[in-house]
Amino acid sequence: MGCSLEQAELASKVLIDADLKGIDSHGIARLQGYVRLWEKDRINSSPDIRVVHQTPSTAVVDGDGGLGLVVAPYAMKIAIEKANAVGTGWVSVRNSNHFGIAGYHALMPVAHDMVGISMTNASPLVAPTFSAERLLGTNPIAVAIPAKHQPPFVADFATTTVANGKLEIMKRKQQPIPLGWAQDKNGAPSNDASCVELGGALVPLGGTRESGSHKGYCLGSIVDIFSAVFSGANFGPWVPPFVSFLEPSCDPVGKGIGHFLGAMRVDAFRPAEEFKLEMDRWINRFRSSKAAEGAPPVLIPGDPEREMEQQRLVSGIPLLDPVTESLNELAKRFELKSIDPIG
Amino acid sequence: MGCSLEQAELASKVLIDADLKGIDSHGIARLQGYVRLWEKDRINSSPDIRVVHQTPSTAVVDGDGGLGLVVAPYAMKIAIEKANAVGTGWVSVRNSNHFGIAGYHALMPVAHDMVGISMTNASPLVAPTFSAERLLGTNPIAVAIPAKHQPPFVADFATTTVANGKLEIMKRKQQPIPLGWAQDKNGAPSNDASCVELGGALVPLGGTRESGSHKGYCLGSIVDIFSAVFSGANFGPWVPPFVSFLEPSCDPVGKGIGHFLGAMRVDAFRPAEEFKLEMDRWINRFRSSKAAEGAPPVLIPGDPEREMEQQRLVSGIPLLDPVTESLNELAKRFELKSIDPIG
Repeated sequence: MGCSLEQAELASKVLIDADLKGIDSHGIARLQGYVRLWEKDRINSSPDIRVVHQTPSTAVVDGDGGLGLVVAPYAMKIAIEKANAVGTGWVSVRNSNHFGIAGYHALMPVAHDMVGISMTNASPLVAPTFSAERLLGTNPIAVAIPAKHQPPFVADFATTTVANGKLEIMKRKQQPIPLGWAQDKNGAPSNDASCVELGGALVPLGGTRESGSHKGYCLGSIVDIFSAVFSGANFGPWVPPFVSFLEPSCDPVGKGIGHFLGAMRVDAFRPAEEFKLEMDRWINRFRSSKAAEGAPPVLIPGDPEREMEQQRLVSGIPLLDPVTESLNELAKRFELKSIDPIG
Repeated sequence: MGCSLEQAELASKVLIDADLKGIDSHGIARLQGYVRLWEKDRINSSPDIRVVHQTPSTAVVDGDGGLGLVVAPYAMKIAIEKANAVGTGWVSVRNSNHFGIAGYHALMPVAHDMVGISMTNASPLVAPTFSAERLLGTNPIAVAIPAKHQPPFVADFATTTVANGKLEIMKRKQQPIPLGWAQDKNGAPSNDASCVELGGALVPLGGTRESGSHKGYCLGSIVDIFSAVFSGANFGPWVPPFVSFLEPSCDPVGKGIGHFLGAMRVDAFRPAEEFKLEMDRWINRFRSSKAAEGAPPVLIPGDPEREMEQQRLVSGIPLLDPVTESLNELAKRFELKSIDPIG
C-alpha cells in the first residue's frame, strides 16, 4: 500500500497481537478492509503524524489520515514521554482510523512501570438509552496495570452489552439473541440477530434502562468526547464508517476518527515496587475468591487472552477459510506469496 | 462533632447538594451514620489532611481519617492546581471515609473550564463475575464536562447494575427484583430483594456474564485500584464498612477508604471556547435524537438531577419521617434547634 517498512511492521504486529489473543475480529481478517479504505483514499499510507497542541502533560495528535494501528502507538509514545517528565501523559488524537485492539496500546506503558489507558470512538452502531437512532460506536476502553510476579491486569471491553460480531455468530447459528443485546429500528428490544442490519442498533452496556443501560450510554459518551471533542475528530453520528461501502458524512464535524491515550507513572503515586507487590496481593485475593456454584474460577481481566496467546504461540493461529481466501486475494494482487491454510 | 466551621459548612454543602439533586440516599439522611462512626473513633473530626507524595501532575493525599465530604474537595483542589500548572492533575487519596455523591467533586473543575473525574471505592457488597464472595464496593465513577450554552455533561453512576437502595425499595414493596441485579449466597442469580442481606451480593453492571457483567467487574476493579492501590488505602474486601455496627477488618491492607480525583484543563487540548461550542453541538445532537417508540426524549447525563434541583430549590427537600426523626435526635443530643417536617 506504500506504507514505510517501519509502519507496515508495526501495523502487522498490532493485528497479529489481536489474533494471538483470540480477538479474531480485530486481527488479520481486517486487512482487506483496510486495503479497501486505502483504495478509496480514506486511509493515507504515508501519513505525516504530528503533535498540533501540547502542555507538559497533554497533547493533541493529528494522524493525517493514517492507519490507527500506527497513529495510536505514536500517540501513546508521546503520552509515555510526558508521563516520564511530569508523572502522567494524556493524548487525544484526530484524523485517524480504526486502531485495532485497544488493549495493545494500553499495554505499551506497562513495560515502563506505568498504567496505560486507551480508548477510541467508532462508527455509529449504538443507540443511547431511549433513542431509536444510532449515535455512538462500540467505543471500547482498555486499562492495563502492572504487577510484580503476576501478569498485568488488562481490561479491554466495548461499552456495549456485546460487540456486533456476537450477533453475527447467533445469526449464523440461526438462534435468537437474548433481550438486552440490541433493539429494532423503532427502538424496541429485539431478539432477532439480524435487527441491527435491519436498521436497529446495539445497546449500551446494561442492556435496558431497568438494568443500567444509561450507565453504558454515559461510558460510550465519555469515550466519544475524550477521543473526539478534545481533539477535533468526528464524534457521535458523524464518525466515518469503517467499511468502504458506506460513505462518510458529507458534513463532517471534525477530522477522521478519534482516540484517547493515557499513561500514568506508577511511582508518581508510590514507589513502583510497593505498588506492584500490592497489585500482586489484589490479584491473588481476587483469583482465590470462592467461585459461584457451577461457575469456573474467578478470572483477572486479561486472563482469557493470555491463555489463548499461550495456546496459539504453540499451535498457531487458525484462520477461517474466508480469511485465508481474502489474504490470498491480497497476495495475488500485491504479487506476494500466497498462504496455505493450517492443518 | 468538633469539625471546624469551614469543614462543617463544606460537608453540609456536599450533603445538601445530593438532596437537591434527588440522590436522597447520599444526602442529609447519612448524617446520623457519620456521627455513629465518629463515636466509634472511625471518623476524625479535626483531620490534618496532607499531601504525602507528588509530581507535577499527580499527588497522593492522606485524609487522616477525616470525612470524605471534606477530604475529597481538598484533593480535588490540588488536582485543579496541578491542571493549572501542567494541563492535568490526578490525586489518589487514602485514609478517607464516605465522600457523598461522586458528582459533587467531579463538578468542581468545571467552573475552571476543566473536565472533572471522581471515583471512590466502598465497602464490599459486589461479587465479581463467577464469584460467590463480595469483593468490591459499588465503586462509582463521575465525569463532568463543561459546555458553552448547554449545562455541563455530568455522568455519575455506580459500577453495579443497581445500588443497594433499589433492592430496599423493592423489598418494602414486597416485589421480586429482576434477574441481573443481585445474586444469592451461593452466587446464583436471585430475584429475592432480600438476597444481599441474606449473604448474597450485588452484581457488576451488565448483570450476567452473557450480558457483560465482566465489563462492570473490570470497571469496579479499576476504580478500586486507582483509588486504593495507588494511594495505600484498603482495597477489595478489606475496605472498611460504612456502617458503624460492622467492624473493619482486623488485618487491613491500607488506611481507610480510597478516592481518585482528576482534573483536565480543556485548553490543554484545544481552545476552551472552541471545545465548549463543540460540546454544545454534541449535546444538541444527542438531545434531538429520535426517541424510541413509547420512550421519553433522549437525556443528557446530568439532566434528571438538574430537573430535580430546579424543583427542590423552589419547593424544598421533602424528608422521610425517619430522616426527620434522626435529625431531631441529633439536634437534641447536640443541643440544637429541632426541625419541623415540611408541609
